[in-house]
Amino acid sequence: MTTTTAFIGLGKMGQGMARNIMQAGIPLNGFDVSEAARSQFAEAGGTAFGSAQEAVIGCDIVLVMVQTAAQARQALVGENALSALNPGAVVILCSTVAPSDARALGGDIEAAGHMMIDAPVSGGQVGADAGTLTVMASGPPAAFDRAMPCLDAVARAVHRLGDNPGMGATYKVVHQLASGIHLVAAAELMALGVKAGCDAAKLHEIVTTSSGNSWMFSDRVPRMMEADPSSTSNVDIFVKDIGLVLQTGREAGVPLPVAAAAQQMIQAAASLGHGGDDDSCVVRAYEALIGMKVHES
Amino acid sequence: MTTTTAFIGLGKMGQGMARNIMQAGIPLNGFDVSEAARSQFAEAGGTAFGSAQEAVIGCDIVLVMVQTAAQARQALVGENALSALNPGAVVILCSTVAPSDARALGGDIEAAGHMMIDAPVSGGQVGADAGTLTVMASGPPAAFDRAMPCLDAVARAVHRLGDNPGMGATYKVVHQLASGIHLVAAAELMALGVKAGCDAAKLHEIVTTSSGNSWMFSDRVPRMMEADPSSTSNVDIFVKDIGLVLQTGREAGVPLPVAAAAQQMIQAAASLGHGGDDDSCVVRAYEALIGMKVHES
Repeated sequence: MTTTTAFIGLGKMGQGMARNIMQAGIPLNGFDVSEAARSQFAEAGGTAFGSAQEAVIGCDIVLVMVQTAAQARQALVGENALSALNPGAVVILCSTVAPSDARALGGDIEAAGHMMIDAPVSGGQVGADAGTLTVMASGPPAAFDRAMPCLDAVARAVHRLGDNPGMGATYKVVHQLASGIHLVAAAELMALGVKAGCDAAKLHEIVTTSSGNSWMFSDRVPRMMEADPSSTSNVDIFVKDIGLVLQTGREAGVPLPVAAAAQQMIQAAASLGHGGDDDSCVVRAYEALIGMKVHES
Repeated sequence: MTTTTAFIGLGKMGQGMARNIMQAGIPLNGFDVSEAARSQFAEAGGTAFGSAQEAVIGCDIVLVMVQTAAQARQALVGENALSALNPGAVVILCSTVAPSDARALGGDIEAAGHMMIDAPVSGGQVGADAGTLTVMASGPPAAFDRAMPCLDAVARAVHRLGDNPGMGATYKVVHQLASGIHLVAAAELMALGVKAGCDAAKLHEIVTTSSGNSWMFSDRVPRMMEADPSSTSNVDIFVKDIGLVLQTGREAGVPLPVAAAAQQMIQAAASLGHGGDDDSCVVRAYEALIGMKVHES
């Protein structure tokens, strides 16, 4: 029995993931709203289609890596991809969405006769390109049996976090609390440091080799020291993710004072016009407050 | 010409640092206000004295590792240790103090005919015991020539950050912005996670191997999952350090919204009676807000 697999959402994350799945010997159909993304996917050996529904016709597995729950719902339900899948198919949702949205989508997918694995990832574009993502996944064991070849192809570690969609999203959103705060803390630290007379590069060197280090600090501060950093993930993605953190706090009944402060600074960067820029540009919000540029220090 | 060296402040950090200096072949005089600390120092091979002044009589180098600038000033100026040192001695201040306090103390030390190296450290008790601290140091080159054997004995890296006291303190305080925020972010993450249904140990495992990791997260969360963690550095130290961060922000003219939010939660932990407990007990402030214990999840 041949399994046919599709990939919807071929952006910065999706392209690398799709390439790694194909390199593992699994042919892919694919769709993205962007024609440039479809061409890039076709050049990498995929079969591109003009709609989500066409891409998944006759498929048994579909990975979804769009930006939001609303986009995932539009592709699967709005554009009727669910009805085009083979009966009993597995939908692997890799997008970072609210736990409540993952549960709701899981219910609709089950009602359509399929199974959903809620499988958000950590590791960014670098991890997607290298096939070294961390996957935080929950869903029915029968679905995992069929999804594992695809997940193993994109990940260094696949964490199984329960039998129902929602727990994968919960771990990922909770994880993003740290990523978001650490991103903003890195910008706040660099702003304080350069205004207080520190050399930016020396400060980066000292913090990355001391107890103040974080994964985000060591990864993003070099781009904060560039005038025009290339983007691997933009500010708007973190506007969404830190919003999901605060939403999850409201739904779970947990006050999040530090995440809330970080959210305001990420919002400030977007409000200043940097929503489409690399997320290291959250430092622009601090530069606006201190009247100097970190990259000119 | 023989150099005589003293060490003032033999607490959790000072004991390990003093031991490593003695193991490098440099005999030490020592003083601490605690008799137990003096005994521990004597057992390790040091010569303990009953006052700071007695300990430094005839010394050419004195390291100071007390908790606050006020304590350092009391020992050096209030108890007249400066007048007991040999002329042209080197004072190595390893305490974390405000840059303005480091500059003021440096002025008094210079006026007394000595030289000061402002040399705060990062790495905690573990680094002090192992001799792997990071030292952020500034002071006159002539002072460094004589101080390096002591600094090399306690440190993996000695960063020279200028010729005047104040820049070492500036780098250290700026660094503490990250440590303080990351400590509180770790507690906030664990509170959100366990209330939202995550397994605490699994969450720790996932975050430490993903882009949400920080040095503080991986080091402190295991102690947040203990009912009664042993202390390597207590909450009150971070009450002081995050206070220095905000003071430095005021003096440099930099708003620090995320550090300010973190400061409130560190203060809350102290206000709940945990000032003398391990700094991982900042999680107690979140536990009070969510009505459950992280270590029982």
